[in-house]
Amino acid sequence: MDNFKVIIEGSGRHVHVSKEDLETLFGKGFELEVKKMLSQPGQYASNSRVDVTGPKGTIKGVSILGPCRAQTQVELSFTDARALGINPPIRESGDLAGSAPCTISGPAGSVELSEGAIIAKRHLHMTPEDAEKTGISDKDIIQIKVDGDRALIFDEVVARVSPNYATYVHLDYDEINAGALFGNPTGTIIKK
Amino acid sequence: MDNFKVIIEGSGRHVHVSKEDLETLFGKGFELEVKKMLSQPGQYASNSRVDVTGPKGTIKGVSILGPCRAQTQVELSFTDARALGINPPIRESGDLAGSAPCTISGPAGSVELSEGAIIAKRHLHMTPEDAEKTGISDKDIIQIKVDGDRALIFDEVVARVSPNYATYVHLDYDEINAGALFGNPTGTIIKK
Repeated sequence: MDNFKVIIEGSGRHVHVSKEDLETLFGKGFELEVKKMLSQPGQYASNSRVDVTGPKGTIKGVSILGPCRAQTQVELSFTDARALGINPPIRESGDLAGSAPCTISGPAGSVELSEGAIIAKRHLHMTPEDAEKTGISDKDIIQIKVDGDRALIFDEVVARVSPNYATYVHLDYDEINAGALFGNPTGTIIKK
Repeated sequence: MDNFKVIIEGSGRHVHVSKEDLETLFGKGFELEVKKMLSQPGQYASNSRVDVTGPKGTIKGVSILGPCRAQTQVELSFTDARALGINPPIRESGDLAGSAPCTISGPAGSVELSEGAIIAKRHLHMTPEDAEKTGISDKDIIQIKVDGDRALIFDEVVARVSPNYATYVHLDYDEINAGALFGNPTGTIIKK
C-alpha cells in the first residue's frame, strides 16, 4: 500500500536508566513514577530528571523515561551534543557499544558512563497489522515524505515492527525543526 | 543536466544591519570591518557582534554580516527562535513585511525591531553559467539530495540566480544537523 499516512512525534532529549544506575542517582530502593504515558505501549515519562554533563557543558533537567532498561542510554540531538562537547554516533536504541561517554547526575549521586550517549537513528515504530498493510518488514529502510514550507523526504528511516509498538515516526528536534513539523505533523511512507 | 553536485554551507544565526541601525548600535560614524570574506562575492563576516533579545531570552554575540543593507534583518533557526520566544516566518532574505519583532543591542545602544526576524527559506545561490548548465531559472523550486547516515531530500529549495552569486546551497543548523552534514558536505540537485 502506497500513501500510508503516519503520525510524526518529536523525541526530545531523554535518558533511559538501568535499575542499578537509578539507585546510584536517586538512592537505594528508588523507583520511577509515571508522569505521563507515551505513545509506545508501556513507555512513560517519569517525574525524575537528571543533569547530563560533557567536557563542554551541562544540560540540566533531562527527563528519565521508564521503565528501567538493561543499560543506561542518553538520547541527544546534535544541537545538544555540541553543547556538551561530545560526539555521539547515530544509532538505533540499545545499540550502545562504543557510543559516547558522558556523566549523569541526580540528587543522590553521579554515574560516569564510558558509553551510552547516542543520536537516535530516525525510525518508524509499527504494529504488525500496519506492517502487513504496507508490506514493510522489521529493519526495512523506508522514506517518510512531509509537506509544507520545509517539505522534506527523510531517507534512512528504519522500520521496527513489533506487537509491543504503536505506529509512529520518531524524529529528534533538529529533524522536527528542519521540517517545520509543528502542531500535529504527519508523513507519508515511501517504500524504497 | 541531472546529478549536478553543489557545495552545502551551514548558515549560523546572523544579523544584517542598516547604516542607520549600525550607528545606533555602535555609535556615529561606525563602520563594519571585514573579519572574513564569505562564499558569496562581496559578503563578509564582520568583527562586530550584537545581542538579540526576545520575550523569553537573549542570544549573545550574534555576528553581523556586511556590507550594510537597506533594512536590518535577523536570521535565526527554530532552535534560536524558541530560546528567544519569538515565532519568525520562513522567508527569503529581504522579504521582511510582517516578520517577527526582536531587540538588538550593541555597545552604544539598542534597536527595537517591529519586524525583521526570519527563518531563512532554504536556498541555492547559483551563477548564470551553472543555471544554464542545469536548466534552472531564478525562483525555481528544486530539491537537493544528500547521502549518508541521515540521508534526506530537501524539497522547497528556492534557486536564486545572479551574476553576483557563487553556486552554494545555504541551510540553517537545524537542517545541517538533521542531515548530519558535517565536514565538507555536498548535495545533488534534483529538478522538480
